[in-house]
Amino acid sequence: MGLVKGLKCRECGRPYPADPLHVCEYCFGPLEVDYDYDALHGRLTRKAIEAGPPSIWRYKALLPIEGEPIVGRHCGMTPLVRAKNLARALGMREVYVKNDTVSHPTFSFKDRVVAVAVTKAVEFNFKVVACASTGNLANSVAAHAAEGGLPSFVFVPADLEQGKVLGTLIYNPKLVAVDGNYDEVNRLCSEIADKYGWAFVNINIRPYYAEGSKTFGYEVAEQLGWRAPHHIVVPAAGGSLVTKILKGLKEFDRLGLLSGGCHTRMHVAQAEGCGPIVTAIKENSEIIRPVKPKTIAKSLAIGNPADGYYAYKAVKESGGHGEHATDDDIVDGMKLLASTEGIFAETAGGVTVAAAKRLIEEGRIPRDESLVLCITGNGLKTQEAVASSLKVRFHIKPTLRSFDEAMASHDIDVTAG
Amino acid sequence: MGLVKGLKCRECGRPYPADPLHVCEYCFGPLEVDYDYDALHGRLTRKAIEAGPPSIWRYKALLPIEGEPIVGRHCGMTPLVRAKNLARALGMREVYVKNDTVSHPTFSFKDRVVAVAVTKAVEFNFKVVACASTGNLANSVAAHAAEGGLPSFVFVPADLEQGKVLGTLIYNPKLVAVDGNYDEVNRLCSEIADKYGWAFVNINIRPYYAEGSKTFGYEVAEQLGWRAPHHIVVPAAGGSLVTKILKGLKEFDRLGLLSGGCHTRMHVAQAEGCGPIVTAIKENSEIIRPVKPKTIAKSLAIGNPADGYYAYKAVKESGGHGEHATDDDIVDGMKLLASTEGIFAETAGGVTVAAAKRLIEEGRIPRDESLVLCITGNGLKTQEAVASSLKVRFHIKPTLRSFDEAMASHDIDVTAG
Ligand SMILES: Cc1ncc(COP(=O)(O)O)c(C=O)c1O
Ligand SMILES: Cc1ncc(COP(=O)(O)O)c(C=O)c1O
Ligand SMILES: [Zn+2]
Ligand SMILES: [Zn+2]
Repeated sequence: MGLVKGLKCRECGRPYPADPLHVCEYCFGPLEVDYDYDALHGRLTRKAIEAGPPSIWRYKALLPIEGEPIVGRHCGMTPLVRAKNLARALGMREVYVKNDTVSHPTFSFKDRVVAVAVTKAVEFNFKVVACASTGNLANSVAAHAAEGGLPSFVFVPADLEQGKVLGTLIYNPKLVAVDGNYDEVNRLCSEIADKYGWAFVNINIRPYYAEGSKTFGYEVAEQLGWRAPHHIVVPAAGGSLVTKILKGLKEFDRLGLLSGGCHTRMHVAQAEGCGPIVTAIKENSEIIRPVKPKTIAKSLAIGNPADGYYAYKAVKESGGHGEHATDDDIVDGMKLLASTEGIFAETAGGVTVAAAKRLIEEGRIPRDESLVLCITGNGLKTQEAVASSLKVRFHIKPTLRSFDEAMASHDIDVTAG
Repeated sequence: MGLVKGLKCRECGRPYPADPLHVCEYCFGPLEVDYDYDALHGRLTRKAIEAGPPSIWRYKALLPIEGEPIVGRHCGMTPLVRAKNLARALGMREVYVKNDTVSHPTFSFKDRVVAVAVTKAVEFNFKVVACASTGNLANSVAAHAAEGGLPSFVFVPADLEQGKVLGTLIYNPKLVAVDGNYDEVNRLCSEIADKYGWAFVNINIRPYYAEGSKTFGYEVAEQLGWRAPHHIVVPAAGGSLVTKILKGLKEFDRLGLLSGGCHTRMHVAQAEGCGPIVTAIKENSEIIRPVKPKTIAKSLAIGNPADGYYAYKAVKESGGHGEHATDDDIVDGMKLLASTEGIFAETAGGVTVAAAKRLIEEGRIPRDESLVLCITGNGLKTQEAVASSLKVRFHIKPTLRSFDEAMASHDIDVTAG
């Protein structure tokens, strides 16, 4: 398309070519992809987008790839579910669940960033793709590398959930389990990226990777009928997703695609055991103090978030806030979402629901305003988190009598029909 | 819509009203939904369908509900993936994967049947929904009951995989684990259905439920550009899905929606440890001999398939065949699909890939003809099947030296980049 102007330093604004770079040489600020919005204005219309494929690639003009997508052709356009039961439970009027538990192909929003990053890695002629991951990225990089016929190296903390581990190994990557937390894994991977020159999707080609998250915001707006909601609650680990959803909405606004403009308040959801961004938000402190993660929300267990500062800024600038969720809250949040809407999210989803509940109770999210919950990963990946609290209560022999006895002994009303 | 004429006995053809009936009073044959195809001809056009929602409800005129969908509004339109790597591995020219691992909301094709059945149950004014299940149906009934605000009773064999159990309990149904195999569970449920009058989706409202599977076939045809493929390989348990995919394609043909007509050969995939339909196909015997299931493909472990005879007929009439897969084949099939296409399917998907491989090798599926594989469930639900053969090979300390040593000691080439 030729609509990428290049990269730009987020701090000093210095321009760079659209190469595999990620840090400003002058101020060490992170680089970001910059587009020629003037050229897009009036050309990228609602109609043009609606005529595109039912995937993230309908927004290709705002994604940093040159040619056609090479992997991940079916990523995106997951349902935006009007969640009336959950809204009632939360005491809200208008709640939506953006449901990336059914993201193609690996059941989390990370497919969005990886589809873009691996395509870009191939365009840059990298021969190996890699990542440091808390689990979902591992799944997605391994899958997209398989699809693209590339070798992959995937680095994760050694204590991940079984679903994340098997859900990576099945694609036959080189999976490296590291004794340490994500922040240690990430530090190691920076060294490996330097030494071997692989495309670490979330390190050395991070500017391209991160753009994929904008599609989460684009889809929400399009699926709401080209409107931005009043509030979005976003789970944060490295802090990129929340930043990029807001960037996406602002781009749509700038291009004249939104009715009613963009006045969305962005709220961050994190676990109490790893909530450095939310802590900074609550303390009104631009400085994100690193923490040592201790939470069942392992996918969000990043103690030193790469984009923490920008996540903080996105929240403050938009008038949003943030909340923490305890481990118990997280499990309750997963159960609430499942039992009201029939949607089984991973721990990160529990964090989001629980944080939203608190923000509503605190009055940060008024009950008559519209709310979108970002449900970013699949509950089948984090079964450990709910296994101990979900027990089979009725175990019977295959006879009517055994059934009737079990119901009677548990005082279950079987005549409701 | 008023396009449902009523029910009709599959054996004697006797008509019945569109009530909650499932067996012919005269000959005990199963009932099936009948439509006024003449009224639909020329009215249900490609354009009308394409203008519909991105879900199974774009085919509402061919589904047996009266009003609007009450649950499962976002079900269907899962990707049809052009699988070039897998095709190469199989020595085929044109292979597609219809990927219901990302089915909304419960990650298997059973959402298609349940969205229809629960909507119909509400239209019939049932107050409780229920099912006998090998796992996926349990997940889906519990989720859709939650969405619809209905109590649900879900009956499963007690030895199911953890993912199927937790993936049901999370929605808060009454889950009843039965000491016995599916066939025993099913027999018990027939008695319970009679006694309590609940809507057992796959028993007393089975005619409506089964129609949901047609959408799998509709979508394949539409996504191929309104063409039917030469071959479809379908995993079978009760035998309904394969029958209904063919019914769907024939309906499309009858309504003039297909280019090139419908000459699709339907092939059935089953496990060696529970393959009564495939055995009958191989032996050219209309009589399906019940078996005692013993396979890791638990979702397909139905030894006495309700629609076995009709599945047999669909295969024979279409010129297709069938194949068995051993437990080892199943795991290999899952790995092949994942490592070539980045798609993580459950054991049933492994059965399908393995059976397709055999059918190709036997010449039943010519290498230059188009092939669609029905991938009907999600690999995260059957982790037990692959856990022992997928081990983390590289376990390191968070240092470059530890990484380099691990790679060296395993003879891994890290300079490929
Ligand atoms: C399920 C899930 N949700 C949300 C996030 C947060 O994304 P980010 O690191 O961009 O803040 C992650 C990150 O791994 C994740 O796995
Ligand atoms: C994943 C999966 N695929 C295929 C089938 C077969 O469906 P049917 O019983 O209609 O033959 C089932 C049935 O439970 C299933 O769970
Ligand atoms: Zn700079
Ligand atoms: Zn009859």
